Amino acid sequence: MSADTKDDRSQRARIVKVAARLFAERGYHAVGIAELQNAVQLGRGALYHHIRSKDDLLYDIAREYIADLNDLAVTAEHEPDPRKRICILGQHLISMIASHQAELTVCFREVQSLTDSRRAEVLALHTRYERVWKDAFISGAEQGLFRPYDPVVLKGVLGMYFYSYLWMRPDGSLGAETISERFNEMALRMLAIG
Amino acid sequence: MSADTKDDRSQRARIVKVAARLFAERGYHAVGIAELQNAVQLGRGALYHHIRSKDDLLYDIAREYIADLNDLAVTAEHEPDPRKRICILGQHLISMIASHQAELTVCFREVQSLTDSRRAEVLALHTRYERVWKDAFISGAEQGLFRPYDPVVLKGVLGMYFYSYLWMRPDGSLGAETISERFNEMALRMLAIG
Repeated sequence: MSADTKDDRSQRARIVKVAARLFAERGYHAVGIAELQNAVQLGRGALYHHIRSKDDLLYDIAREYIADLNDLAVTAEHEPDPRKRICILGQHLISMIASHQAELTVCFREVQSLTDSRRAEVLALHTRYERVWKDAFISGAEQGLFRPYDPVVLKGVLGMYFYSYLWMRPDGSLGAETISERFNEMALRMLAIG
Repeated sequence: MSADTKDDRSQRARIVKVAARLFAERGYHAVGIAELQNAVQLGRGALYHHIRSKDDLLYDIAREYIADLNDLAVTAEHEPDPRKRICILGQHLISMIASHQAELTVCFREVQSLTDSRRAEVLALHTRYERVWKDAFISGAEQGLFRPYDPVVLKGVLGMYFYSYLWMRPDGSLGAETISERFNEMALRMLAIG
């Protein structure tokens, strides 16, 4: 891939985006390569210059947003106040869900369609991301700000955020900023002592 | 269907259960009728005595648990204390998710594979169920027990519960009772004034 030009990369990103939307709307198995060609307005040869297979597309769709979330999490980890860290993580997460709703839909729906090693890789990225939240919860507990760490609280908080891929409307009256502010406040309520 | 015997109904329920597990494990489109026949140990004729098509099975899988949740919600609606009502709803919901994890997986993953009218029916059942929670939130706000009704809080609370279909392990160390108790406590924290 080192010989890829910048144009190649942006074409590829465009194809992945269109494929995510099609797979989210109609299901991964229901969308054929001919339909994808048509949607991205490329001939078969040009399309296969950018992607190797439909399976590769699914892998990219399922992997990229969670890999990006892990990259973003690094900035949050520098924040020493666990309450602020959770607000940064929550804001990044809702912003990513809002801009990658089709990708999340495809990932949650089709993760079992990935090959074993790719599925394991995607799930490991989710586990790594969850670990960043867990560390913030534990750090808050150690500083006497949060209740003792409880895995059910972790799952509940993450569920609140992640589930929004199912109901968030990009053009809805509730913007991503509003949703993340309220969810962050709710997450801190769930964690607070007393 | 009025001529169905009790044996027919229990056979049909068994087929729906096995189909839900197979569809959850391998995907609706990946499972053929021959595989289903094999799993339920019935010949083609006997299987088609109980079900009309794979599409019918998907419809039953996606519809029954949410129809049952709506039926259960009627008992919760008799509870005048909105805090207790939420605890009853939460306990029913987690108990249903624990016992119907495959069905929820299939429904969340394959709802777009249903025909338009059936999808609309299943989504309407979800909307009706959400309405019961919403009424409890509004009732609590009117009684001065909860914060003013906020649709983001409703979505967040329901997300916390529903998302558990993805991580709950039937044989895990966390039982449904423990999960619903903690989630109920978290939901009440999210709703509490102050």
